[in-house]
Amino acid sequence: MSSTFGTIFTVTTFGESHGKGVGAVVDGCPPRMELSEKDIQPQLDRRRPGQSAVTTPRDEADAVTILSGVENGLTLGTPIALLVANRDQKPGDYKGMLHIPRPSHADYTYQMKYGVRASSGGGRSSARETIGRVAAGAIAEKFLRERFGVHIVAWVSSVGPVDAPDLAETTLKRADVDQSIVRCPDPASAAKMESVIGDVRAANDSVGGVITCVCRSVPAGLGEPVFDKLEAKLAQAMLSIPSTKGFEIGSGFAGARMRGSAHNDPFVKKGGGLGTATNWSGGVQGGISNGMPIVFRVAFKPPATISLPQKTVDFDGNPAVLEAKGRHDPCVVPRAVPIVESMAALVLADLALHQHSRRAIG
Amino acid sequence: MSSTFGTIFTVTTFGESHGKGVGAVVDGCPPRMELSEKDIQPQLDRRRPGQSAVTTPRDEADAVTILSGVENGLTLGTPIALLVANRDQKPGDYKGMLHIPRPSHADYTYQMKYGVRASSGGGRSSARETIGRVAAGAIAEKFLRERFGVHIVAWVSSVGPVDAPDLAETTLKRADVDQSIVRCPDPASAAKMESVIGDVRAANDSVGGVITCVCRSVPAGLGEPVFDKLEAKLAQAMLSIPSTKGFEIGSGFAGARMRGSAHNDPFVKKGGGLGTATNWSGGVQGGISNGMPIVFRVAFKPPATISLPQKTVDFDGNPAVLEAKGRHDPCVVPRAVPIVESMAALVLADLALHQHSRRAIG
Amino acid sequence: MSSTFGTIFTVTTFGESHGKGVGAVVDGCPPRMELSEKDIQPQLDRRRPGQSAVTTPRDEADAVTILSGVENGLTLGTPIALLVANRDQKPGDYKGMLHIPRPSHADYTYQMKYGVRASSGGGRSSARETIGRVAAGAIAEKFLRERFGVHIVAWVSSVGPVDAPDLAETTLKRADVDQSIVRCPDPASAAKMESVIGDVRAANDSVGGVITCVCRSVPAGLGEPVFDKLEAKLAQAMLSIPSTKGFEIGSGFAGARMRGSAHNDPFVKKGGGLGTATNWSGGVQGGISNGMPIVFRVAFKPPATISLPQKTVDFDGNPAVLEAKGRHDPCVVPRAVPIVESMAALVLADLALHQHSRRAIG
Amino acid sequence: MSSTFGTIFTVTTFGESHGKGVGAVVDGCPPRMELSEKDIQPQLDRRRPGQSAVTTPRDEADAVTILSGVENGLTLGTPIALLVANRDQKPGDYKGMLHIPRPSHADYTYQMKYGVRASSGGGRSSARETIGRVAAGAIAEKFLRERFGVHIVAWVSSVGPVDAPDLAETTLKRADVDQSIVRCPDPASAAKMESVIGDVRAANDSVGGVITCVCRSVPAGLGEPVFDKLEAKLAQAMLSIPSTKGFEIGSGFAGARMRGSAHNDPFVKKGGGLGTATNWSGGVQGGISNGMPIVFRVAFKPPATISLPQKTVDFDGNPAVLEAKGRHDPCVVPRAVPIVESMAALVLADLALHQHSRRAIG
Repeated sequence: MSSTFGTIFTVTTFGESHGKGVGAVVDGCPPRMELSEKDIQPQLDRRRPGQSAVTTPRDEADAVTILSGVENGLTLGTPIALLVANRDQKPGDYKGMLHIPRPSHADYTYQMKYGVRASSGGGRSSARETIGRVAAGAIAEKFLRERFGVHIVAWVSSVGPVDAPDLAETTLKRADVDQSIVRCPDPASAAKMESVIGDVRAANDSVGGVITCVCRSVPAGLGEPVFDKLEAKLAQAMLSIPSTKGFEIGSGFAGARMRGSAHNDPFVKKGGGLGTATNWSGGVQGGISNGMPIVFRVAFKPPATISLPQKTVDFDGNPAVLEAKGRHDPCVVPRAVPIVESMAALVLADLALHQHSRRAIG
Repeated sequence: MSSTFGTIFTVTTFGESHGKGVGAVVDGCPPRMELSEKDIQPQLDRRRPGQSAVTTPRDEADAVTILSGVENGLTLGTPIALLVANRDQKPGDYKGMLHIPRPSHADYTYQMKYGVRASSGGGRSSARETIGRVAAGAIAEKFLRERFGVHIVAWVSSVGPVDAPDLAETTLKRADVDQSIVRCPDPASAAKMESVIGDVRAANDSVGGVITCVCRSVPAGLGEPVFDKLEAKLAQAMLSIPSTKGFEIGSGFAGARMRGSAHNDPFVKKGGGLGTATNWSGGVQGGISNGMPIVFRVAFKPPATISLPQKTVDFDGNPAVLEAKGRHDPCVVPRAVPIVESMAALVLADLALHQHSRRAIG
Repeated sequence: MSSTFGTIFTVTTFGESHGKGVGAVVDGCPPRMELSEKDIQPQLDRRRPGQSAVTTPRDEADAVTILSGVENGLTLGTPIALLVANRDQKPGDYKGMLHIPRPSHADYTYQMKYGVRASSGGGRSSARETIGRVAAGAIAEKFLRERFGVHIVAWVSSVGPVDAPDLAETTLKRADVDQSIVRCPDPASAAKMESVIGDVRAANDSVGGVITCVCRSVPAGLGEPVFDKLEAKLAQAMLSIPSTKGFEIGSGFAGARMRGSAHNDPFVKKGGGLGTATNWSGGVQGGISNGMPIVFRVAFKPPATISLPQKTVDFDGNPAVLEAKGRHDPCVVPRAVPIVESMAALVLADLALHQHSRRAIG
Repeated sequence: MSSTFGTIFTVTTFGESHGKGVGAVVDGCPPRMELSEKDIQPQLDRRRPGQSAVTTPRDEADAVTILSGVENGLTLGTPIALLVANRDQKPGDYKGMLHIPRPSHADYTYQMKYGVRASSGGGRSSARETIGRVAAGAIAEKFLRERFGVHIVAWVSSVGPVDAPDLAETTLKRADVDQSIVRCPDPASAAKMESVIGDVRAANDSVGGVITCVCRSVPAGLGEPVFDKLEAKLAQAMLSIPSTKGFEIGSGFAGARMRGSAHNDPFVKKGGGLGTATNWSGGVQGGISNGMPIVFRVAFKPPATISLPQKTVDFDGNPAVLEAKGRHDPCVVPRAVPIVESMAALVLADLALHQHSRRAIG
């Protein structure tokens, strides 16, 4: 069930980049939660291409329709089907590329796997597939916010060589993040990132970046040892997003260079229970949330589609030069911010229901 | 099913660090494969504590018994149950710590999650839980090697501040890795790592590290879009290993700093099909293997158990000082090498069977 | 994932009886299979109410649209989303019943389970939910037919007190079944069944019946011991159809009265392998298909919606009399024939892919 | 994951009839429940062969050991591994049958499926596999009883031609059932059943039967529409038991002959909520429990192993005569009573946790 994610709160996505539509079926959402398209559309709008000068200018309205599972503004507890119609189909744009697998795209691997592939665009490997996730994630997030007060916010923490300062321990909100078109809440860094993206665009090239995500007010106890540890499900969720190459939680790769005496998070009294004085653990110990903010980072490679000519070979191994037509997104991380938030919400909602099944009995 | 991993080739592990035994049930292994305990024991021996001066000196024989699923030396296609008895139970070692949650251990989170926890050691969060995975992984690996020629090898690529040179494109074998007790195949780096571990041990402290893993001769086409992408399942598998904080594939976090023109892997003719001139993708495009070596890295934090006194609080929030008794492993990465290999094998075996179900029909 | 069925070839259905639409997402269908709406519509038409005088006269076109997963008439191996719009929404019909849970309907249990329910009709317990299954089943069946030559045919074998003779060992086709509007291929029995249904309709009552299904040319080896035995998955599939009360395979309940010497199916030489002289086993031994026809029967209760006044209580326990308005289907079994066939196809397709993953390697 | 059953409360069984042992891993059992081997052994003893003159005289102690997941008499919330050693291995008994697939056994289908099979006995199709289920079911049942007051009792309601009167609406307990060695609580019927079994044994033959099971005090709301309806999961669970050929709930196949006006269960005021005046539904409406007793019946075929010579063919199709050596169980239904109860408990425990995950939030 490779297109289904989750055990109790589940999402099944469908749709190619250039078919009739994309969407998702959310099953297991608790009943009697207020829900309408207005709860979902804002994150879809944040994900949409063409929002600003730094993203691809294709205009796709991406308006979501709830097909089922909601009546009189309330969830019924039954599957919530979500549909976003495709409208901007220009398969002609891709015609010349049919016999040349695009480097670092999925043309070659889809062909090897399925013996066939969508003739235009990336099929299921297209960023457009993420619409279903973002729509589903908006529902998961509403549930987490209303029942537990969970607050999830992600932002661009690096673009190419530009690193923003560490903002994980602040109280950032999405409005802060959206102040800049690159979705970096540090203005000085944002300006540099915009400049890098502008340069890259001018050079017909692309550039990667990193997104940091913080989940606050997550109750302690979420995460199912051993294979469904919280960080393990987050890692799967993030590496399932197109173009991602890395995931780290808390101290991450830097933690591998530390000593235990510095890395251990001493406990302190906090509210009615315990907290930790530091948070190198990133809110997770033994695969289970400890009530501290969950902090993780996701690395995105530079987009594979560039307008520069590329020397490669065609499917038969004959030398070829590939030149992408049209305009392309030189840096996807600003648009990927809501995708990261959505996948985090899907992980947390599923684990929250799982944990609830266990604790509240008896 | 948090203790079960996989869809077709599945493993279910069981066992606490200090109960009667630990083990696993492997379901879905193809029938008629030669199998005996001798195929499994070597990786368990590599995982075992006390192999060398750099690991914990506790002597645990960890001898595996196959309880079912094999007859006359051949797998039957039925569940293969694997059991390793516990024998070195010294709950007394942990007595003083019952009321003090150990910093960066899972005592607090298990208590918050379950309302109870194993009174001694880490319960399911203990490294001992990984015995079941390693035993199961040895079976998966044998299947992959015999049917596809897959070769999986991992090694220690950094300990604390010491980085070994990049060896991902070599033809390293496990015998090369095991030349040094730190399991770093670069002798100069290995010497430095040993020295760092010695210093840390003398200081009653601990240190983290990074393991690099390469999977060669993996057929193209493995990985199930969209949530069960190859890199997504590898990320889940690796972050489910105790003490891990990060995962990256191919270019990883460094790739986020690159431009597309440098990062894209141009195709080249190779054998009967295509390969790529570079391998920034790490053997995976669009979530599907492309036939190139799969290269990934896993970050391990420094072990949380240190002999240095730690200021913290007890479960009630009262100030306390924790001092771990006994001898502890100052650096787990050498022993974690076979765990990483085993989890990689479990991912690949499951995806290989999944892919086979699709392609060979018709 | 209660709305998802299957492990490799999976279907996820969505939709209430009176929302915007109903449908399904089929994941795991092998790629490069020819597919269009024309392959799916015929079974939907057979399922549709209003086909004849014996079924409910509501006219619902139930035209299916493939939203994704197919391009140029070929499956891509990606999720196939199927949508049938709802159009005949008359919630007014159900108004008077909001405070009275309909006897032997799901109003009460949905309210107890979810604390809310669709205000009109049966929500997810409506027969309309089965549209998604029938659409998905048509795809599964096409796959089974083209790759293995599997032939699935079901028919009405009893209505109320009228039993048709045993036709399991004939070579019936769907065209034979559709000769009569009650879908009983024995003309004499069909006439009696029509008469019973006519009487029941005249009496504002309803009546139950039994459907027999035979799956021919199923290859030996399908079915996954122990919990996913072929008969176990068929039983789950059939009892998941609304209004079903029983399932039996082969000798069924009558077999419980037999002696082993009579019930055992002796092996005989057949083609290149073995067959059995009798088929009391119903094509399954030890949970695995043996190559003989798979024969099973499904019992359907009389529809709960009747126009006769019924003495009951409202949700508060106050005495009430319920009288259903509108016209209702007095006997669902003729329309349920394609539903039974579809669920059988979904079971077999999933088990066929599962088995294929195992056998063809090595 | 064909050897795993359940979504939240899961059981994975392992073991052949004649390997080193059989057992199960129970995952997802709520923590802090008192549990020891003493809670499990009684049902294993009821399942054991050789309890009385009507069952097979092989003496197998079937003593269960809890390997993990329990400490200080309390469940930890972690996987509970259960092991029962095999000791009565006499592969010689089966030697002569290696080349002759036993009629209506699984020899032929296992060989077709796996290309190999356990050389002696039925492998995974053996009744001995059910030990793991019964052990796991005892844990599920304890959970259901202590948290919800659920009471599950099954009994033999027919053997061959002998039918006991309908006892579904009584308040039978297991002690009542165990009054007779055939586990039929109606003494007159029990005597006749014993007589039938005696005759069959004397004739070197075997005979089938039916088990009725009632689950009382099941809370309303259990069962997950649409594919995991309560009756659908029960049906799967029951048809996964060796030798079963049929399942019916409530009115069952007899209900298919009834009219709706007679079959509908009118609601009545009952305690704080509603009940139904009749229970043709068998405690389930729309796939969800309604608080009334859940009543179902399971048909068992006559055991395939008989001492009478049987004309059949060998694997190559050559005529052969099979004569089973040793003593065999002429009627399995008395021993199958605890198996039916255990599978029912596993279904209900999983659905109870699933439902709890949904309702108690908010």
